Amino acid sequence: MRRFEDNSWKEKMRIRFDYNNMMSDMIGDEWGINKDQITALIPKIRDAVDKLNHKRKAGKTQWRDLPYIQKDVVKDILAAADEVRQKYETFVLLGIGGSALGPIAVHQALNHLHYNELPREKRGGPRFYVVDNIDPERIQALFDVVDIKNTVFNVVTKSGNTSETMAQFLIVRNMLKEAIGEKYRERIIATTDAEKGSLIKIAREEGYRTFFIPAGVGGRFSELSPVGLLPAAVGGIDIEELLAGAAYMDELCSEDDVFKNPAYMAAVLQYIAMQQGKNISVMMPYADSLKYMADWYAQLWAESLGKKLDLDGKEVYAGQTPVKALGATDQHSQIQLYTEGPFDKVITFITVEKYRSKVCIPRAYEDMTGVSFLGGHTINRLIRAEQMATEYALYKAKRMNRTIILPEVNAFTIGQLLYMLEVETAFIAELLNINAFDQPGVEEGKIAAYALMGRPGYERKKAELESGTEKKMEYII
Amino acid sequence: MRRFEDNSWKEKMRIRFDYNNMMSDMIGDEWGINKDQITALIPKIRDAVDKLNHKRKAGKTQWRDLPYIQKDVVKDILAAADEVRQKYETFVLLGIGGSALGPIAVHQALNHLHYNELPREKRGGPRFYVVDNIDPERIQALFDVVDIKNTVFNVVTKSGNTSETMAQFLIVRNMLKEAIGEKYRERIIATTDAEKGSLIKIAREEGYRTFFIPAGVGGRFSELSPVGLLPAAVGGIDIEELLAGAAYMDELCSEDDVFKNPAYMAAVLQYIAMQQGKNISVMMPYADSLKYMADWYAQLWAESLGKKLDLDGKEVYAGQTPVKALGATDQHSQIQLYTEGPFDKVITFITVEKYRSKVCIPRAYEDMTGVSFLGGHTINRLIRAEQMATEYALYKAKRMNRTIILPEVNAFTIGQLLYMLEVETAFIAELLNINAFDQPGVEEGKIAAYALMGRPGYERKKAELESGTEKKMEYII
Repeated sequence: MRRFEDNSWKEKMRIRFDYNNMMSDMIGDEWGINKDQITALIPKIRDAVDKLNHKRKAGKTQWRDLPYIQKDVVKDILAAADEVRQKYETFVLLGIGGSALGPIAVHQALNHLHYNELPREKRGGPRFYVVDNIDPERIQALFDVVDIKNTVFNVVTKSGNTSETMAQFLIVRNMLKEAIGEKYRERIIATTDAEKGSLIKIAREEGYRTFFIPAGVGGRFSELSPVGLLPAAVGGIDIEELLAGAAYMDELCSEDDVFKNPAYMAAVLQYIAMQQGKNISVMMPYADSLKYMADWYAQLWAESLGKKLDLDGKEVYAGQTPVKALGATDQHSQIQLYTEGPFDKVITFITVEKYRSKVCIPRAYEDMTGVSFLGGHTINRLIRAEQMATEYALYKAKRMNRTIILPEVNAFTIGQLLYMLEVETAFIAELLNINAFDQPGVEEGKIAAYALMGRPGYERKKAELESGTEKKMEYII
Repeated sequence: MRRFEDNSWKEKMRIRFDYNNMMSDMIGDEWGINKDQITALIPKIRDAVDKLNHKRKAGKTQWRDLPYIQKDVVKDILAAADEVRQKYETFVLLGIGGSALGPIAVHQALNHLHYNELPREKRGGPRFYVVDNIDPERIQALFDVVDIKNTVFNVVTKSGNTSETMAQFLIVRNMLKEAIGEKYRERIIATTDAEKGSLIKIAREEGYRTFFIPAGVGGRFSELSPVGLLPAAVGGIDIEELLAGAAYMDELCSEDDVFKNPAYMAAVLQYIAMQQGKNISVMMPYADSLKYMADWYAQLWAESLGKKLDLDGKEVYAGQTPVKALGATDQHSQIQLYTEGPFDKVITFITVEKYRSKVCIPRAYEDMTGVSFLGGHTINRLIRAEQMATEYALYKAKRMNRTIILPEVNAFTIGQLLYMLEVETAFIAELLNINAFDQPGVEEGKIAAYALMGRPGYERKKAELESGTEKKMEYII
């Protein structure tokens, strides 16, 4: 039996959501949420639950079903990953936004923190890179340390037309052709829509291996699709356990009672906080392994909730700005502001009960009181104490904070975490009456970029750009 | 003649501050700043200039003089760095917050983006690590890839008592002793206060090499002191050019007329924006090399401005929350929110006119309009077009934004950038009538951590923690 099929292990690995410090019982009536405020929302919550369930049944939120519908896909991914792990020195993912943030977050969470620097035998697979920008220095730097002859590239774009990713693809395809000739076709794996966009056309014509992102799965909800599963499997991560964790959280989130449903409650609390003017949401994991979960969440939260119009077409300019922090590091950077600055934020800690390493602090300097108290403890205890102390300081300062508790960091708990945050996001969007799944606000910039690059058909926009309000030289110092 | 002694080169390398898109001339009267609003503040600005100049003359802001007062220190640093570069395989900085963020930012800006993966001869110096957390997995991971026998450690703490850094120090000192015996003393370089704290005592007793942080230089203003200069020099960065850049910006910032002073103007604009309810400040460089500048700035801005009390003891709960972003990457993560969400932020782009690499996008797929327009251009042009397009989209959506323009990324422009942001921070603090140089809000958490670690003398706090409001189990799902 795989461990994720064992119910008692699952229960032991269940992640918990502690929202005590959001409530007026803890931080007082002026700054906390009263339980009655939640109860008063129950009709609205029921309505949101119905809408979300309806969408799921209508097949509009297929990301919710990814833990169940991919048995064959998983098999193909494992086969492809196995081949990549055997044959190549380096794996490079080309993608941006939703195609990159999930793979980076899961790799950081579940692989060694200096993965690429380990000897091959300790890694078991190729070195792992995600190139999610078009900075020429970054692209040059990659090829200073990577031998293209031993590299496989995973090109990931849902639309099949993302400019940044397709530009990277054109560069890499050319380099591969020059280096190894027609065999370059074996070195490109395309993850994209099965029908739409340029990438799938190219992949079919040139015979690349392909994986598909289901139609009802938007970029930022795609980590549990082949977008995330292939790179994870290449890195040796147990993707079946990841999906099992997500399925377990789906079970926990199928509870209609908001007081028993972690994702719904998380969303309701943020909804009330937003009504009270909290326009900032900080995610602060106390583990380097979870550092990039905050980046992944930042996209999910920002793009899903940052909306000018609600579903009735009313101008609402909704959105809470996500902020990434890392404990204990950012106690020395951000906590001063969080405890003393404006009452404008909700802080979500992520804590880990059992780290995968244990390091002892040796005793020394018994006469120096500023140092000696550290000796004889583990550093595990120190980071735990610091998290508790920071939580306490925020509580004393009456700052809304909440904690997601991971018993351990493993594929099962990471699957839960991803899924919980996705459901929280979709649910708060229902409460806010906005569409979590579109991103109309990026069109203007996209079109302006086409115009500036001289893409045919965008001549009018180019003229608009050139005839726009001219900048004043006096405002450039 | 060194290039930074050539006036025409300096002028060519001068960084510029473009604030057009903050102004009502560009984004309209409702959301922009009118020039008259700035003029109306001139008496207040003069007063702030006087106060800042007075502090400098009184020796209270010695960080402003770091470009001038370190001739001998620089000589010592270069000698130490030269030895480290010759003798060791690995350099590890142990520090947190102000002791780590600057060294990380400058290393990322001025060294190769995959520095540690380059062969030794291309690096010219040791591999470079900054360990700025106490996560046991991270510490374990470091020693999985680093041979302690060939490593030198730079322990950096201004107070000499920072728990996280001293815990790291105790661990490393013990490991070194076990590995190489009494010679461990040669492997630790302490950067700390010359008088106060445990570290200087230990360093003197055990004979470590030491560098000092001048008394009037707080952690977050210390990058141009030995805190930043030693690691930079170990990485082969021209620290004299860095300091020359800072000195040049000091010159540019000595202009009393706010319309000619980039740092003062930057501060005044943020001050007005804050009055108008913009409680978020996004820094979005369009270069991977500048990614961690946003982290460094996030500490500077958050700790300096996040204050409960003003200088008259009035409760003000001041502060603007810094947000780190990266162009073009975060166009696919945050721009949706920035263009369509609440009017609650100021976005500061950092752009680079000339990158250190040039990469061409080959022509291909002439029949696919979604891809073919990319071919034949450089990727340099693409990232530039994307920045301009994003700026345009924000301007169209009437969102306050401004741009710091770097002609190139080099030690001279980075020195300017650091110094400009420091002066902006100090200046806005004067306008806000708050103390930029303390951090009273971190005390509560620090003391609670001591109590939880069982440090003698903190028994009462421990009792308080234990007798505090108990968490309700019903609020943990």
